[in-house]
Amino acid sequence: MNQLVCTTCRSTYPLTEPIWRCACGGLLDLQFEAAIDRAALATRKPTLWRYREALPVRELVSLDQGYTPLLEIEVAGRSVWIKQDQLFSTGSYKDRGAAVLIGHVQALGVRQVVEDSSGNAGCAIACYCARAGIDCTVYVPASTSPAKVAQIEAYGATLCRVPGTRQDTADAVLAAAETTYYASHSWNPFFFHGTKTFAYEVVEQLGWRAPDTVVLPAGNGTLLLGAAIGFRELLAVGAIERLPRLVAVQAGRCAPLYRAFHGLPEAAPEPAPATTVAAGIAIPKPVRGPQILDAVRESGGTILAVSEQEIARALQTTHRQGFFIEPTSAATIAGVAQVVWDAAAGEVMVSVYTGHGLKAAGKH
Amino acid sequence: MNQLVCTTCRSTYPLTEPIWRCACGGLLDLQFEAAIDRAALATRKPTLWRYREALPVRELVSLDQGYTPLLEIEVAGRSVWIKQDQLFSTGSYKDRGAAVLIGHVQALGVRQVVEDSSGNAGCAIACYCARAGIDCTVYVPASTSPAKVAQIEAYGATLCRVPGTRQDTADAVLAAAETTYYASHSWNPFFFHGTKTFAYEVVEQLGWRAPDTVVLPAGNGTLLLGAAIGFRELLAVGAIERLPRLVAVQAGRCAPLYRAFHGLPEAAPEPAPATTVAAGIAIPKPVRGPQILDAVRESGGTILAVSEQEIARALQTTHRQGFFIEPTSAATIAGVAQVVWDAAAGEVMVSVYTGHGLKAAGKH
Repeated sequence: MNQLVCTTCRSTYPLTEPIWRCACGGLLDLQFEAAIDRAALATRKPTLWRYREALPVRELVSLDQGYTPLLEIEVAGRSVWIKQDQLFSTGSYKDRGAAVLIGHVQALGVRQVVEDSSGNAGCAIACYCARAGIDCTVYVPASTSPAKVAQIEAYGATLCRVPGTRQDTADAVLAAAETTYYASHSWNPFFFHGTKTFAYEVVEQLGWRAPDTVVLPAGNGTLLLGAAIGFRELLAVGAIERLPRLVAVQAGRCAPLYRAFHGLPEAAPEPAPATTVAAGIAIPKPVRGPQILDAVRESGGTILAVSEQEIARALQTTHRQGFFIEPTSAATIAGVAQVVWDAAAGEVMVSVYTGHGLKAAGKH
Repeated sequence: MNQLVCTTCRSTYPLTEPIWRCACGGLLDLQFEAAIDRAALATRKPTLWRYREALPVRELVSLDQGYTPLLEIEVAGRSVWIKQDQLFSTGSYKDRGAAVLIGHVQALGVRQVVEDSSGNAGCAIACYCARAGIDCTVYVPASTSPAKVAQIEAYGATLCRVPGTRQDTADAVLAAAETTYYASHSWNPFFFHGTKTFAYEVVEQLGWRAPDTVVLPAGNGTLLLGAAIGFRELLAVGAIERLPRLVAVQAGRCAPLYRAFHGLPEAAPEPAPATTVAAGIAIPKPVRGPQILDAVRESGGTILAVSEQEIARALQTTHRQGFFIEPTSAATIAGVAQVVWDAAAGEVMVSVYTGHGLKAAGKH
């Protein structure tokens, strides 16, 4: 039975309930039986909606996007399959989640949402709300790049700049979410049932087989947890025969998941938090942290931390190969460069460009 | 027989000749017999290479792109099909031309090219050269937006900033092109045999029929002339039954084609040329101007001029619909808004978002 389930107290709610967390304050997950109609795919457009039997909405807010190219690219001397998710309309993979979540919001009849985001998720929620005619307020750290803020405002969203850290922004939006529906890319389970399309596309593009290893960024785990859901569903319906190993990448300067996974002590609180160019994954307290650790462990994977130097090197190398990505995306590729040394011959590795370089270009 | 033909002296050259203009100085066109394999399309990926039988190269420099979404969007109260060409890797439709031209350059064995561009074509040539490992120098006006310049440099291209007008940049690159192959988006006919894929995709996406009207920007006419070639080829192979009417849009502040088409006197030279936010189509002396006029006339179309106010209005409206495009793209949509008033009921109109909004966001 399809329903919302609290990860803390196990309360359940029907999907039609306009809530984003449990009455107990706990995180909600979606209990959902996905299906796939492989025969129908040949006649369907290359969009997220190809996998409609696997999506918990009757309609997407759609820009006819998805099915991003999966290209074989050399990373540190080895061939890796890279999903070009920087090519989504708002410039990042977050469109996957926003298309499903805002489709759900529209079906709920909710006319107003709040969201918080260091940039990419805010852009995606603002874009799909604009498309759906839903009123949207986006909370962002005051330090967010001018290019990203311009994009959010262009879509007609109200922008609320919060001084301080990313966490201060998260706190501010939680206060607002007491009275307004929270279209959150970290709390709201429908977002993850959009990002799971990443797994469906990869498996179809590889000819209906699972990759051996998937290297993904982890800040809030929006893509990683979505991919984990997707691969599990694909296994459940028999489209693949095993789960891939999930490797999560964090920036060394903000690596709470890396530390927890490897049993390292928490980073000492600093007067001013260390900054990383991979701002999109610099999340000190990811709300789904325990789920991320579980998903990685269950898959037999690991969590890596990459240095600023490794990110800078990966960024330049990727640009010079003809792919203009943002620095946060380069952290993931730096992680791939670590992993390839241990890769077995013939191992099928998949990773992702998460965001477009133009997102960051305005900073210079 | 496939060959290069001079539009001035009618000299011919084999395709393997590493030239970009005739010995007489004339513009070269490509005499090329296109084919289409509709049966094969069902099994091919949604990329430019679907139409390989229609392309004058044995291989593309490919990022697996193309087949951009064609969405039905409301413009001035009427439904119009809009190609989402802002979703190409470099952020504009210019990738279509660069993929074919640099594929040709690679086949020629040329290892070094020059290009000039107010931004988007420079980005595309730099990107595909990076992918192909070809040395690239891009000439741009010194006034080009920081975001665009950052992108060209990220791809590893050498940037040559030319003070003065767009024409000064064109003159500077012509001098350089005396000794280096000119991968020009206005001179080089192979570029137009990449942009022609626009027409192939539109016709396939509409279910193998020609639209009635196609509204496109016209600066150098890179997309318009490519589309004209594509529709003519599709007519020749019997894939469509008639040519669509081509409507070209110029910014009123730089509208030499509009003036010529309607028999207006040339704009008086001004001490400082009027600037338009639609910088990408502000070309005072388009090298293929006569061809653009011919293509529009042959199709029974027209050339429009739009004001800065109309561009600003179209830009805001489009953003608020959830599409983040650059101001040059909005000029075209402002043209669509003019045309829809005269449209017949049931008339199938197609237009395009040419460039991503993030291209311009760095300016603010």
